[in-house]
Amino acid sequence: MSTDAVTHDEIATLISTRNNWGRWGSDDQRGAVNLVTPERTRAAAASVGAGTVMSLSRPFPKEPGPTNRKPANHYLMQEPRGAGGMASDYLGLNYHGLACTHIDALNHAWGEEGMWNGRQPEDVLRPAGALWAGIDAWSNGIVTRGVLLDVPRHRGVGYVTQDRPVHGRELHEICTAQGVEIQPGDAVVVHSGREEHDRHEEPWGTGTARPGLHASCLAFLRDTDCSVLVWDMLDMAPNGVDMDWAVHAALYAFGTALVDNAVLEPLADACAERGRYDFMFVAAPLPVAGGTGSPVNPLVIL
Amino acid sequence: MSTDAVTHDEIATLISTRNNWGRWGSDDQRGAVNLVTPERTRAAAASVGAGTVMSLSRPFPKEPGPTNRKPANHYLMQEPRGAGGMASDYLGLNYHGLACTHIDALNHAWGEEGMWNGRQPEDVLRPAGALWAGIDAWSNGIVTRGVLLDVPRHRGVGYVTQDRPVHGRELHEICTAQGVEIQPGDAVVVHSGREEHDRHEEPWGTGTARPGLHASCLAFLRDTDCSVLVWDMLDMAPNGVDMDWAVHAALYAFGTALVDNAVLEPLADACAERGRYDFMFVAAPLPVAGGTGSPVNPLVIL
Amino acid sequence: MSTDAVTHDEIATLISTRNNWGRWGSDDQRGAVNLVTPERTRAAAASVGAGTVMSLSRPFPKEPGPTNRKPANHYLMQEPRGAGGMASDYLGLNYHGLACTHIDALNHAWGEEGMWNGRQPEDVLRPAGALWAGIDAWSNGIVTRGVLLDVPRHRGVGYVTQDRPVHGRELHEICTAQGVEIQPGDAVVVHSGREEHDRHEEPWGTGTARPGLHASCLAFLRDTDCSVLVWDMLDMAPNGVDMDWAVHAALYAFGTALVDNAVLEPLADACAERGRYDFMFVAAPLPVAGGTGSPVNPLVIL
Amino acid sequence: MSTDAVTHDEIATLISTRNNWGRWGSDDQRGAVNLVTPERTRAAAASVGAGTVMSLSRPFPKEPGPTNRKPANHYLMQEPRGAGGMASDYLGLNYHGLACTHIDALNHAWGEEGMWNGRQPEDVLRPAGALWAGIDAWSNGIVTRGVLLDVPRHRGVGYVTQDRPVHGRELHEICTAQGVEIQPGDAVVVHSGREEHDRHEEPWGTGTARPGLHASCLAFLRDTDCSVLVWDMLDMAPNGVDMDWAVHAALYAFGTALVDNAVLEPLADACAERGRYDFMFVAAPLPVAGGTGSPVNPLVIL
Repeated sequence: MSTDAVTHDEIATLISTRNNWGRWGSDDQRGAVNLVTPERTRAAAASVGAGTVMSLSRPFPKEPGPTNRKPANHYLMQEPRGAGGMASDYLGLNYHGLACTHIDALNHAWGEEGMWNGRQPEDVLRPAGALWAGIDAWSNGIVTRGVLLDVPRHRGVGYVTQDRPVHGRELHEICTAQGVEIQPGDAVVVHSGREEHDRHEEPWGTGTARPGLHASCLAFLRDTDCSVLVWDMLDMAPNGVDMDWAVHAALYAFGTALVDNAVLEPLADACAERGRYDFMFVAAPLPVAGGTGSPVNPLVIL
Repeated sequence: MSTDAVTHDEIATLISTRNNWGRWGSDDQRGAVNLVTPERTRAAAASVGAGTVMSLSRPFPKEPGPTNRKPANHYLMQEPRGAGGMASDYLGLNYHGLACTHIDALNHAWGEEGMWNGRQPEDVLRPAGALWAGIDAWSNGIVTRGVLLDVPRHRGVGYVTQDRPVHGRELHEICTAQGVEIQPGDAVVVHSGREEHDRHEEPWGTGTARPGLHASCLAFLRDTDCSVLVWDMLDMAPNGVDMDWAVHAALYAFGTALVDNAVLEPLADACAERGRYDFMFVAAPLPVAGGTGSPVNPLVIL
Repeated sequence: MSTDAVTHDEIATLISTRNNWGRWGSDDQRGAVNLVTPERTRAAAASVGAGTVMSLSRPFPKEPGPTNRKPANHYLMQEPRGAGGMASDYLGLNYHGLACTHIDALNHAWGEEGMWNGRQPEDVLRPAGALWAGIDAWSNGIVTRGVLLDVPRHRGVGYVTQDRPVHGRELHEICTAQGVEIQPGDAVVVHSGREEHDRHEEPWGTGTARPGLHASCLAFLRDTDCSVLVWDMLDMAPNGVDMDWAVHAALYAFGTALVDNAVLEPLADACAERGRYDFMFVAAPLPVAGGTGSPVNPLVIL
Repeated sequence: MSTDAVTHDEIATLISTRNNWGRWGSDDQRGAVNLVTPERTRAAAASVGAGTVMSLSRPFPKEPGPTNRKPANHYLMQEPRGAGGMASDYLGLNYHGLACTHIDALNHAWGEEGMWNGRQPEDVLRPAGALWAGIDAWSNGIVTRGVLLDVPRHRGVGYVTQDRPVHGRELHEICTAQGVEIQPGDAVVVHSGREEHDRHEEPWGTGTARPGLHASCLAFLRDTDCSVLVWDMLDMAPNGVDMDWAVHAALYAFGTALVDNAVLEPLADACAERGRYDFMFVAAPLPVAGGTGSPVNPLVIL
């Protein structure tokens, strides 16, 4: 039941004919995260080997930079308390963008036909939070098996480049080469080599063009029925298919969660070293009522 | 090697003679979280049974109230994008206090003799973040076995009351009664019945007096070598031993992490129902350089 | 050329036939503040008598309350500097609403036909600031003559009540009774007795009904060509004419600035005591590019 | 009674022997702003000529840059309202530093002997605001005569350079050359040419060295009994006299208000053109209880 949707028209057809609207009921706000059943969570825990924990998070983005025009706030206060004292701090941020590791809620993006499950933005977006498909729909987190797909290692290069975006077809090939099969509800973790890129080029995301995943990966996400896509490089830009949203359309079309700006190099190295590409994956977003996402520190347990 | 430190003097002696300063080296910033070894993490994963995930988090505290005088900010923005669009939001908060489920970093509190591992606040606290023992010391999260100690169920009451604080001795008794033993590195999860309290009384924490844990629990934490204390009610107030810090002194004395304001009733019910009190515990703080803690959505996997 | 528009239809007609769109050019973003000419500013300065300065501002709204569900952030940091030190602080707020004294930019409100000068919100509103009629259009502040209209004193009561809103006709009567004439570009300052109200009733704005100005004041604003309306009570609610916006429609229809939530009792007392109702008025908004307004500390100089 | 304190020791002596502690009572929190009497405010209004208003404010500093590492937050929200709608926004900032035009409260800085009027920081600084000498002490604003001292024009250069800081002696000379005399309570406005500097050099404040005022200006401030110093360039750095605070010591020593990062070039041009250097000056800080200052849009009326 594999699809190869590559062009604008093919992808538009994919979105309109194979979207997941109504699949879990017309009032469902959890999308593909529904595919993470207790059975899948149990299997994830059973996959733990050495017990090594790794964080996939970048540092909380306090420092401004070319790809962080709106750095996070961090202000530390202190006060005496008898002979001792207490320190506290204020954190503030708009985590979307390229600097903060975060998870997108299903209400973060919408296309011409609307948001996840057919809702219209004007009906559900409010200044104090959305009335639909907020990050709090995933308050119980996403605890599932993760599978790393290591694009640079497969290609024998350091990192993905602008002239050669990651296609869905290639992701299928990597699965085969790595000897893994994505199960429904799995977290697909696509390593494109952002850290290595940034050691050789201007930070990924500087300027208007950037390498990354091609919209043809949408079919891969739909075919594999993964619950979440975790990635270091995001959609390539420009996306080349003249669409408002490319891979990000998975949010509203399939209900797939996205964990943007993950740090994947150490995990890729560890997977290669042990010759095994699956692990337990945990993302625990802050339960913000009606939030469009959350900063998150995704953990993997090998 | 059990201690029963109950009075001001006994507790002061406990802190000065049995603290963990230097135990993991004089430059250690991770404290008792060092006790969570890969072996303990593996054991935690192995304890997973049904694969049920539960969140221990309260909702992100946007609404003001008697125990939430500084409600979190949540502002949602939107913008068109071709025929579709995008929603994002700003989150801001001072998560310490009684409303937000959060983890305290070791630099959050200090006593007369200083902070964790003997550092002095004036040397390490800066407006843009602390130079010592920040929450980023735990960037890899805390993934360990958790053990629930259910005080109200043990007592046969709905919730802990002001006249009868939770003592360390009682926690030992509950371990025995529940048939569990705390292992070094475990997460100790103390349920005091805050949800039930709030159905019958003014919200817990309203006013200056509140029921909770007595400072004698410090000895329990040190004796068991747990890595983290997760609790719904915190230190009783007033603490009754005339100390600047009561149970919170575990931060600077023992290097114990604290997860404050957890929601524990559903977990307590689930544990009672299955007759088993241990589970896999995951807390993944945001890696804020020099932060005094982090809002967190702690997950347990049964 | 006085109008008496009182009903929904009369007001709708007023807005569509007598609005100021195009009056200062189709690209004008300053609205009625254009009427504050240097000549009017000079006259304002010339009106200064004793040299007494009064602030019309409420305290920066840090405390939550029934009319302040989103209290402002204020967090104070400190750091050593040699033998001395430095304190700084973070301020954050959404100043609109009923708690903060602030000025509305012309882009703050729009009706069926659009925003000030006919712009459409979807074309000009962006998450990082509006592209039209932002508060920075008034970066040079509003320095003009102010005239207080004292409704409670005129009525011989303590404060305006729900059953008797302030009408435009009454404002004309008060001008006559007080012996003042509004000049084009003046600041009209309407005192409704909010402070006295709050000493006798639930804080003004608690609940869904509140006394204040009737939509018929729109004609008064247009007839007098004032530049800004300064008020303690705002639009009455419900507005009684079944309109989306009542007096606030002056923003998009006439380009009139609004200074909401002013404290006017001390000024009213001073004006009555000296038997003179005009003074120099200064409002200096923060020049936020594309802002929808600004917190402001309006000053009057008697 | 002129002083010429130039060296570290002379300035230290000046601060300890000629400070204003106790001058307006030991509980005074308004400092030199007490010198702005109604008589002085009246004189300021009387100085208005053409009625031209100028803002001395930089734009609200939303954009990051080498001298703005903590850019202000500005997030715009919108919501429908019947057939129309409403836009609002969140503003957040730490206004101290070099990017935002702001006024320092007297509690912003302290030396070895303490804060304004002898208070100690540990006694009065709290996370939610200071208990002493906050910006709310000046809630009624500062409305006084301003006098511009134009250093570059006096020198016949474009801007002040690192090798030639502005000395107090030179400010006296400029007064004489310009034919103006500072009156007690006046606002002293020192133009150093920051705008011209920034057209020719890296933005002022980039790096650790920067031109500006020498600590010897302290004596000038004390001798003239001005209420506030308004400046575009601040203290030169390094300050050359090995002091923790240079001109900024005026805050705690003399109770002088400081308006940092003003834009003064247009005012300097206007003053030169009309051959007159005094004007009406208005600064209206937000009344933040216990704040260490406030962003401010200072206005002058010529």
